[in-house]
Formats: sequence, structure tokens, C-alpha cells
Amino acid sequence: MADAPYRLVLLRHGESQWNEKNLFTGWVDVDLNEKGEKEAVRGGELLAAEGLLPDVLHTSLLRRAIRTAQIALDRADRHWIPVHRSWRLNERHYGALQGKDKAQTLAEFGEEQFMLWRRSYDTPPPALADDAEYSQAHDVRYAELPGDIRPQTECLKDVVQRMLPYWYDAIVPDLAAGRTVLVTAHGNSLRALVKHLDDISDEAIAGLNIPTGIPLVYELDADFKPLTKGGRYLDPDAAAAAIEAVKNQGKK
Amino acid sequence: MADAPYRLVLLRHGESQWNEKNLFTGWVDVDLNEKGEKEAVRGGELLAAEGLLPDVLHTSLLRRAIRTAQIALDRADRHWIPVHRSWRLNERHYGALQGKDKAQTLAEFGEEQFMLWRRSYDTPPPALADDAEYSQAHDVRYAELPGDIRPQTECLKDVVQRMLPYWYDAIVPDLAAGRTVLVTAHGNSLRALVKHLDDISDEAIAGLNIPTGIPLVYELDADFKPLTKGGRYLDPDAAAAAIEAVKNQGKK
Repeated sequence: MADAPYRLVLLRHGESQWNEKNLFTGWVDVDLNEKGEKEAVRGGELLAAEGLLPDVLHTSLLRRAIRTAQIALDRADRHWIPVHRSWRLNERHYGALQGKDKAQTLAEFGEEQFMLWRRSYDTPPPALADDAEYSQAHDVRYAELPGDIRPQTECLKDVVQRMLPYWYDAIVPDLAAGRTVLVTAHGNSLRALVKHLDDISDEAIAGLNIPTGIPLVYELDADFKPLTKGGRYLDPDAAAAAIEAVKNQGKK
Repeated sequence: MADAPYRLVLLRHGESQWNEKNLFTGWVDVDLNEKGEKEAVRGGELLAAEGLLPDVLHTSLLRRAIRTAQIALDRADRHWIPVHRSWRLNERHYGALQGKDKAQTLAEFGEEQFMLWRRSYDTPPPALADDAEYSQAHDVRYAELPGDIRPQTECLKDVVQRMLPYWYDAIVPDLAAGRTVLVTAHGNSLRALVKHLDDISDEAIAGLNIPTGIPLVYELDADFKPLTKGGRYLDPDAAAAAIEAVKNQGKK
């Protein structure tokens, strides 16, 4: 065991091809778009400039997180570090909304239902049938996940529940060994982790947004809890601006 | 344990920025050039077209092999498979020749010495001093390699010796578990592996060249030896042409 403080870096992947198209993505394995690739480069430059060099990487099984890590680590000259991947770091499964247009969904179901699916802690969208176009039921990368654990939809509470075993079993041991750990993942899997780290309530987590492409650094004590709640963004001005922009999106 | 035959795929990285410049590379961590990136894409397309989908990847710690794997696996939609990396799959350490121009070296030392360094089984180039420009003595990725095992130069015999423990300890267990294993590495670390697999003599190995970017598939028996010596290239015509081109380079 190394001594605290332990160092954890969270990085949310940049813009994907479906962000552009305004579609719900979830577990659908879309790639970064050009802007997303640039965000990943910038993430790597911020790590390098800070001298904050990851010793080990954890990602989801989704291309947009995997490529964000590859691009950022290549830029920080850390392309050679060990890599671990798990479905437990995947984005929230968006159920029957996967592949649907966000504006159409809002028009079809109304704002109250729409916001409940997007932001409530424990109301998942309807399940996605295994034979639906955007289901991952037959995706070989999940072949070792029995049907009773492979999600057909998820709320954030579900994400917390399936992410935490990976935190305790895979990430904490790397931190305990004194490694600087990079977790490259998704808006909701990272919100789930931050909720746990910062002890954010089920209600308050709705208001938390993590900007894309800006490394968020936590120093953790001997109990793997933050020395400073909320951690520290490597580009705090850009992070604040991005968070403000998301808040204003919500205003109509 | 799964049953034989086991499936092993070898992929040599494509052209690098120093191939273009005609410099000895070895452990210097240069990137692919544009042609090398295209070769990696083509490698991935060949894997996908054959339905030969790796379950696990082993690479060296060098960017040109790491990126070749990333590009090829992304193209074959296998970007999400587990990754393992080891210095034991690195290119041959080229000693004091690292960073030197090949034509200048030939002119300086004469053809006999030049060919001995390039092709003899057991004559390494002079050692590279730890304070030399192109030494990896202070590269953090090798920080856990004590000085008595970190090479300052290598002949092919040395590469065989340091590569084989990784074959037995890391690759064979994956094969034994029934996984299709992709090894993305270098001209000499792959020649070392093929020498072992095909029982090629110390003399005959000088004549063996492995083309870049064309997957080489071996089916292995219960003793992890090839069912067919030499394996099978996924694009045999392109492989034969590339091997012929190298032979003709040698003729003056």
C-alpha cells in the first residue's frame, strides 16, 4: 500500500457523431466526431502541461471513451500504460430511447416525462427489446454478461449500482498501489462515481454536470474520499464556462 | 483449457517516420507515418473480411505497434478487447546504431560489418551508453526494469531469449483459454517468435522476412506448435510480393 493522498483523474469523452445529430446514444457504440477528437487532444495536453501522468487507464467498452483515452494518452506520451476496460464504466443504457431523436422525443412525450427520463435519479426509460435495432443483446462484447445483469434500460441509480463494484474491485486497488489512475468514461458513469466520491444526495446529483474533455483531478484520503469536495478541473475557467452553458440550455 | 487448434495472429506494424528517413530505430519510440497508418487500416480490414476476430491483444511498449493495433482493431470493430503490453515484445534494441543513418553507417563500417549487425544471429551492435541521445535508460516506461536486464544493445538471439518468457507466461495461457490472440509487434520480435514456432535454425532465420501490415495466422496444436509451418498470410499475394521486394533489396 502506498500512502494517501491518492490521485484519480476523470475524463469525460468529447463530442460524438450522435451528439451532432441530437440522438440518444447510451450503449450504442458511436465514434467521436472531429470536435470530440480535438477535445481529447486538449485533454492530453492539459495532463502533460500539469505533469499529471497516469500510470494506468480504466475505460468503458465504448469506442468514444476508448478513443478519447488513446488520443489523450498519445498526446501526453503515456500511450504505453496498462489498460483495463469494463462494461461497468459504460454510459447509462438509455433503454427504448437509444437511437431516438431528442427533439422528437420531447415533442412526443412532453417536457415533464422527458426531463424525468433525463434527470430523475430512479426513473428509467422503457426497456429496449432485445430484438430492437439499437439493442446490444447480441453484441459479442457483452456475451459474458448473463441476461439477468445485462441492462435493457437504466436510471442513474442503476448506473451507480453497477459501477461501484468496479470502483472497489479494480480502481481502488490501483490507487492503493500508489498509481495515478485515469478513468475515461461517460457523462453518467462519471456522475455516478462523483456522486459516490463527493457524497452527493439523490436529489442534488440532478444538478451536476461534468464537462467533456477537461481532466478532473481528485486527491483522495486513506478512505479513498476526496481531500477537497468536487476535485479540481485542470482548466477551471473552461470547465466553469461549460457547466454554465449546460445550465442555460435548461432555461427556456 | 480449450481444445487445439489454437489461433494466433501476428501483425507487424507498418512504416514509421524513421523508415522514411532511413534511420535505425530499435527502441526509439517513433510514430507511424501516413503509409503506416494505411497499412494498419488494411490489416484490420483483412481481419474483418476473414472473420478472424481477436479476443485479446498483446503489444510492445512502442507507439508504432500500439497505434497499429488501435487502428486495425478499430477497423475490425474489436477496439474493446483486453490489451496487454510488454517490453518483451519490443523491437530489437539496436544499440549504438539507434538514431543513425543506415547509408552513412554502411559507408562508415563497410558492408560486411553492416550485414553482420543487421542479419547475424548472435552479433549485437556496440552498446548504447545510458547518457546517449537515443538511449532509453531514463525512459519512465522502463523504470521497473533493473539495469541488469534492460538492454543497451541486442542481437536476434537476445530478442529470442527475452521474448520467450512472455510467450510462455502471457500469450500461451490466452491461447489455452481458447482465445484468438493478436500479437502486434516488430520485425525482429516477430521473427524471434516465428523462429520458435517454426523451429527455424539460427542460420536460416537470417533469410526470413515478415511483411508489414499483413496478418499472419497460425493454427497451433496441443503443444502450441503450428499445424502448418510458416502459417498463412491473409493476403498471400501481397505478402509474397513484399518478401520478394526485400530479397531484391539485398541484391546489389
